[in-house]
Amino acid sequence: MRPVDPAVRQARAWLSRAVEPGSVSMWRFVEHSGPVAAMAALRTGVAPREVQALVGERAGEDLSADDLRRAERCGARLVVPEDDEWPAVALHCLTLRAVAGDGPTERTQALVPPLALWVRGDRPLADLVDRSVALVGSRASTAYGEHVAAEFGHGLGERGWTTLSGGAFGIDAAAHRGALAAGAPTVAVLACGVDRAYPSAHSALFARVLDDGLLVSEWPPGCAPLKHRFLVRNRLIAALTRGTVVVEAAARSGALATGNRARELGRQVMAVPGPVTSAMSVGCHELLRERDHERAAVLVTTAAEVVQAVGRLGDDLAAPAERPTTPQDSLSDVARRVLDACPVRSGVPPERLAAVAGCAVVDVLRVLPALELHELVEWTGTGWRLAPAPRPGR
Amino acid sequence: MRPVDPAVRQARAWLSRAVEPGSVSMWRFVEHSGPVAAMAALRTGVAPREVQALVGERAGEDLSADDLRRAERCGARLVVPEDDEWPAVALHCLTLRAVAGDGPTERTQALVPPLALWVRGDRPLADLVDRSVALVGSRASTAYGEHVAAEFGHGLGERGWTTLSGGAFGIDAAAHRGALAAGAPTVAVLACGVDRAYPSAHSALFARVLDDGLLVSEWPPGCAPLKHRFLVRNRLIAALTRGTVVVEAAARSGALATGNRARELGRQVMAVPGPVTSAMSVGCHELLRERDHERAAVLVTTAAEVVQAVGRLGDDLAAPAERPTTPQDSLSDVARRVLDACPVRSGVPPERLAAVAGCAVVDVLRVLPALELHELVEWTGTGWRLAPAPRPGR
Repeated sequence: MRPVDPAVRQARAWLSRAVEPGSVSMWRFVEHSGPVAAMAALRTGVAPREVQALVGERAGEDLSADDLRRAERCGARLVVPEDDEWPAVALHCLTLRAVAGDGPTERTQALVPPLALWVRGDRPLADLVDRSVALVGSRASTAYGEHVAAEFGHGLGERGWTTLSGGAFGIDAAAHRGALAAGAPTVAVLACGVDRAYPSAHSALFARVLDDGLLVSEWPPGCAPLKHRFLVRNRLIAALTRGTVVVEAAARSGALATGNRARELGRQVMAVPGPVTSAMSVGCHELLRERDHERAAVLVTTAAEVVQAVGRLGDDLAAPAERPTTPQDSLSDVARRVLDACPVRSGVPPERLAAVAGCAVVDVLRVLPALELHELVEWTGTGWRLAPAPRPGR
Repeated sequence: MRPVDPAVRQARAWLSRAVEPGSVSMWRFVEHSGPVAAMAALRTGVAPREVQALVGERAGEDLSADDLRRAERCGARLVVPEDDEWPAVALHCLTLRAVAGDGPTERTQALVPPLALWVRGDRPLADLVDRSVALVGSRASTAYGEHVAAEFGHGLGERGWTTLSGGAFGIDAAAHRGALAAGAPTVAVLACGVDRAYPSAHSALFARVLDDGLLVSEWPPGCAPLKHRFLVRNRLIAALTRGTVVVEAAARSGALATGNRARELGRQVMAVPGPVTSAMSVGCHELLRERDHERAAVLVTTAAEVVQAVGRLGDDLAAPAERPTTPQDSLSDVARRVLDACPVRSGVPPERLAAVAGCAVVDVLRVLPALELHELVEWTGTGWRLAPAPRPGR
């Protein structure tokens, strides 16, 4: 454990309140100057104009000590890039894009690492997100979508994977609950302070998440869940996980945005199909219909398939969908035709079977023993007929 | 119209009863010898042993005159490759594979053209299948699958496409009914004689199909719908159409087999997604999950998307899923932050908005006019607040 200079942590706390996250210029400025010098420049108004403008009127405030105290009171801490538990591996994809500067420039779309993360809960952040999958989807979800989200969260938990989501109503909540039901840790990445229960109906859910999981946010304690913050937050959900599953999404929705962020970051994007009659599956089907195969989402129907899609090769293979087999499967073409030629009631001689089946009598005599062995036909004393056992459909 | 030698038609009628279709050797023998000579050789037992064995005890029978009469009585005819209405273009894919001999060898899997087709209904066969799509699926379908099949059949009919299916319970029947409801022709390819209503509950449906469509079969009138015949029949459904849509299919089902035949023939394979909790969508999801992109089915959610997938380029483009747009879409990042900073009730001055939004006062003053123009904010006399209009979710 490297000790982190308290001045660094305080500077990053100040930056996390003064700067709305998502700005590549600001991230580069902080990387280049170091957090302490960056804060000093911004507070005295001598930073380059472009980054100074991003702070605006907030330059005059300093609530960093309050924020750190307030975090401590609710069991939270500020995790900074200088900490061991900083999820550097996961966030590397954002660092690369911010350095290259080739991503979208609009702040809510930008691919840029956070300056710091407020984390509430006991587990080290990097450990918990190492094997994690994002389950995202609409707040206005259907019972179907919630069922699938809960099943996936549960199945991921059973397989040792962390479910990460946004703590919102609908799909997010069902995903967290599914993971909790499996006794597995789950992480909620919020668009407000980690001391706030938003939505307030989720205060009990968040308390359960904290038993073994984490609440994470880029915004200091007390910050409100403003609309644009959800969009900025989505890149973190995509980056912190190995892949993002869109469980239900309308044609235009935040969940789709998270899926797009994941794709831009080279993460596995997955989508759950649903009824084509459901507006809440339209977004998922759009992701799956993408013509460019490199950009199309992977269709997933079970947690095992999710793990297969994000897991290391050969590590986590999903079993193929169950295919029942019947004795008929192993029959030759002639045997199948003879079987179909057998009447249900009165037995008929092999010559008649040959005429109906369209083959030679010798062929009929050759296949009858196998059919009898499989209890598919029986000898009545005067001829052959179908055995009475029930047979599945065509 | 070329007149077809009645001896040729009679020979093909005899072959259609004597030979269970699906044999590449038999098709080659008939192609090589001509149908009249092929029949003569098979009846006298002097054909090559391999093809003679395929006729077996049926060599001694000749019901061809009866079959042709029986067909005529029910308004059917035997369409032979020598006829103008023979769907040679559609079946060319089978001819190529039978000549190359590189397809599966098992008879129920073989890719081989029919020796003749019994056709009931007034429309010329080739015309009707020229712009056709196969809608296939389980007999044990769900209400959801039947709804989608009917919608697709209806939508294809409205767009001038023929719906082709197998006339069975479930998805097939719903597809035919959907086409009929649009006043469009539909074709049922049967695994029994075209004079038989199988299943018998579909006699009224088949009568309606015959109003403007066709019943088609490789088997002569009176033939029973034996199990192996459905498997052999499936290649025709795949070959006669531009593409096959699997609407609902269990993990192991005839509908999946038809989809696989279509893929082997280079036809477009499509699948309708459904709830991952539905056993009847497992087969569809398997087709969509195929890792080899060349082999994967195309996900379709509307008839327009089906037509887009099979139609000629640029001809039939489906509209993308509807995306509602809001005034907020066009806002800049700063404008969005200012908007989110506006309180609901009492108005606040621009300086306060700048502090909350994290930008300069001058930026606030710059974006407020646009926000007011969009009726998103209003001036209370003392400050700015959100306009009371309802706003959509995040």
